[in-house]
Amino acid sequence: MTQRERAIKGEITDEVKYVAEKEGIDPEVLRTKIATGKVVIPHNINHALKKFCGIGEGLRTKVNANIGTSPDGDDYEMELKKARVAISAGADCLMDLSIGGNIDKVRMGILKMVDVPLGTVPIYQAALEGINSSGSIMDMTSTSILKVIERQAQDGVDFMTIHAGVTREVISSLKKVGRVLDIVSRGGAFLVEWMVYHNKENPLYENFSQILDIAKAFDVTLSLGDGLRPGAISDGTDAAQIQELIVLSELTQDAWSEGVQVMIEGPGHLPLHQIEANVRLQKGICKGAPFYVLGPLVTDVTPGYDHISAAIGGAIAAWAGADFLCYVTPGEHLRLPTLEDVKEGVIATRISAHSADIAKGIKNAIDWDYRMSRERKKLNWEGQKNLSIDPTRVSEWKGKSKSDPKACTMCGKYCAIEIVNKYLKQEVENR
Amino acid sequence: MTQRERAIKGEITDEVKYVAEKEGIDPEVLRTKIATGKVVIPHNINHALKKFCGIGEGLRTKVNANIGTSPDGDDYEMELKKARVAISAGADCLMDLSIGGNIDKVRMGILKMVDVPLGTVPIYQAALEGINSSGSIMDMTSTSILKVIERQAQDGVDFMTIHAGVTREVISSLKKVGRVLDIVSRGGAFLVEWMVYHNKENPLYENFSQILDIAKAFDVTLSLGDGLRPGAISDGTDAAQIQELIVLSELTQDAWSEGVQVMIEGPGHLPLHQIEANVRLQKGICKGAPFYVLGPLVTDVTPGYDHISAAIGGAIAAWAGADFLCYVTPGEHLRLPTLEDVKEGVIATRISAHSADIAKGIKNAIDWDYRMSRERKKLNWEGQKNLSIDPTRVSEWKGKSKSDPKACTMCGKYCAIEIVNKYLKQEVENR
Repeated sequence: MTQRERAIKGEITDEVKYVAEKEGIDPEVLRTKIATGKVVIPHNINHALKKFCGIGEGLRTKVNANIGTSPDGDDYEMELKKARVAISAGADCLMDLSIGGNIDKVRMGILKMVDVPLGTVPIYQAALEGINSSGSIMDMTSTSILKVIERQAQDGVDFMTIHAGVTREVISSLKKVGRVLDIVSRGGAFLVEWMVYHNKENPLYENFSQILDIAKAFDVTLSLGDGLRPGAISDGTDAAQIQELIVLSELTQDAWSEGVQVMIEGPGHLPLHQIEANVRLQKGICKGAPFYVLGPLVTDVTPGYDHISAAIGGAIAAWAGADFLCYVTPGEHLRLPTLEDVKEGVIATRISAHSADIAKGIKNAIDWDYRMSRERKKLNWEGQKNLSIDPTRVSEWKGKSKSDPKACTMCGKYCAIEIVNKYLKQEVENR
Repeated sequence: MTQRERAIKGEITDEVKYVAEKEGIDPEVLRTKIATGKVVIPHNINHALKKFCGIGEGLRTKVNANIGTSPDGDDYEMELKKARVAISAGADCLMDLSIGGNIDKVRMGILKMVDVPLGTVPIYQAALEGINSSGSIMDMTSTSILKVIERQAQDGVDFMTIHAGVTREVISSLKKVGRVLDIVSRGGAFLVEWMVYHNKENPLYENFSQILDIAKAFDVTLSLGDGLRPGAISDGTDAAQIQELIVLSELTQDAWSEGVQVMIEGPGHLPLHQIEANVRLQKGICKGAPFYVLGPLVTDVTPGYDHISAAIGGAIAAWAGADFLCYVTPGEHLRLPTLEDVKEGVIATRISAHSADIAKGIKNAIDWDYRMSRERKKLNWEGQKNLSIDPTRVSEWKGKSKSDPKACTMCGKYCAIEIVNKYLKQEVENR
């Protein structure tokens, strides 16, 4: 039985116990949220996870890091290194987005190595196998796609992006609205290519009940992908995007009926003032299903700095109720991420998540900041380093002041904190 | 006469013409905003500026970069280099915060070199000269402070931070509220030290009318400093901070009566959900005077990544109405900024400013993004590079795809944009 089915039955599973304790909430409250679809705990029955991860309403905002090969960068060891860097920088989940080389090998390597939930986008492998067997994505069939989904589920993948919302009707809506950038989702693009060529409906949509059977059998959490996520600020929150979201909400109901756990994926590129509306729309239309957003980037002009653009958007999204942030690295739009990009991307996204958790009142979130500021007041650099989001960088960067070893090089002996500590105290003593 | 006085008289100055054209707004509208104090154009009559910079309501959000020596880093050439890096990264204004070495020389060097408004914090130099002449900050006098302000005004400084709001009453409020970090402003700390030692009122507050005389004579824009800006999330929006803001609003009225242009400085560290309230409070209490914020940082735990924490806060602040963002570099809380820190800090802050300008509907802001996305659709890398916030980084980072020279290494030949361009077009042709 899936987490959802067991929660509906009233069972407090090991996963629920673990997550409730970790989050400091009541297991019974958490169970109810899983039963009503507001929280998921991705955990494939074939994946020997020990650290479970709850995603959804009232829980700490989680961070995902994407890794994986490309046709131009197919280095198994490098992807395992990226996985390690992402985890050590604090990623809660990983997605393997490999579309080059031996995809099975990379996935199995990561699954064995890391103790966090792993996600995939099976259509990538299905497309690549179509190309490898006959030279064309067009040679994917419903059967070959379902086989890849089943194989990945069998291997232990905990959550899968399924772009089942890119229907013919949605593509027709896309053409009517007239976008600057029609589709920027790779999975969405593969499906459009296939659908246009074969003049057929989306195979993930048509075979959704078989996909649910597989998901149910292995308790794979479905992450319903937004193939039409806007890839330009000017395309944000258009009819095509919302049309697809409505399809995803219907599929969510189907999944829930079958006891399958579901998340919904979201933008993408959005201007600041549309982010909250997008979260409220998703939460309303999809009846509170967890929202998993990529960014959103709040401007299109920042290649090389897209992690910052995404950090701004992600913070506002998470504050408004998004539950799961997919990282964006500085290399987005330019290259496959380097190890340094992976680390920067995870940390930027954790900054968004944590600042949003403070704002939305997630239990104990602000305590971290409070403890840090206490160490600042004491001018205790060791304490500050240990409480920093990246202690290594603090060690490397902290300038040693010649004039006052307690202060940093920024103010040297004119450290505001030190002066005020001394003089406010003195005034009290003078009284 | 000052800009303010001339605006009140109805004059459209060269500065107003320049800024109105640059911003694409009506000069008469701009003149009214200057007359009512909602916009400032910092321009000391002794500074031969050609590029004027308007700051305030309805204008593009501006970005300031802080540079300057410290007791532990006193390298004249390096500070000039930082000034050049900041300007070429797109800073609209600079502040020279030197507190080490020959402060006059650094200031004059920067004033001669750059063609943007320059700000200072004269209390730093007054304090340092007290120390140099007698070994103690306590030996500053009202006269010596006013002399420094006058000398800097004479030299051509366009705007000055004056921490006149740290009154004895405000310090008393600070002690009552009980903060995690009492005061983190260096200028605020110098003043508290002096006030406690001498058991006297803030000399900047007591001599504010003489300061106004100097500001009026040279048309120096006063930037009323928030000596009590919160330096910890937990201290955000407390009574002491707001008490000081009320004092600043009274000083704003005094300045306006004397024809002096004024900005108000703001936090600091604030949780996400308090940022909009802080902007609305400042705009309400200070009758629409431009708001100049440092960050705000949305979490305390990110030394080494504080530019990201500040980018999140700055975007929300500017969207809510803050007019001028002071950059925060990755080195904040750790060290004097390196050249690379200066560049990263300026660009992160420009991302905040620009994304906020899109959201608040600043004229033509979104056009930049639209043009970028058009180049993306065309897969025109040269066009994308030229429209990027940092073309140099794009040139350096863009991975050259082996399999498809039009695409990047991220997706290689599986470029979503390329696939969709081809297939959506094909479908239209098939009809």
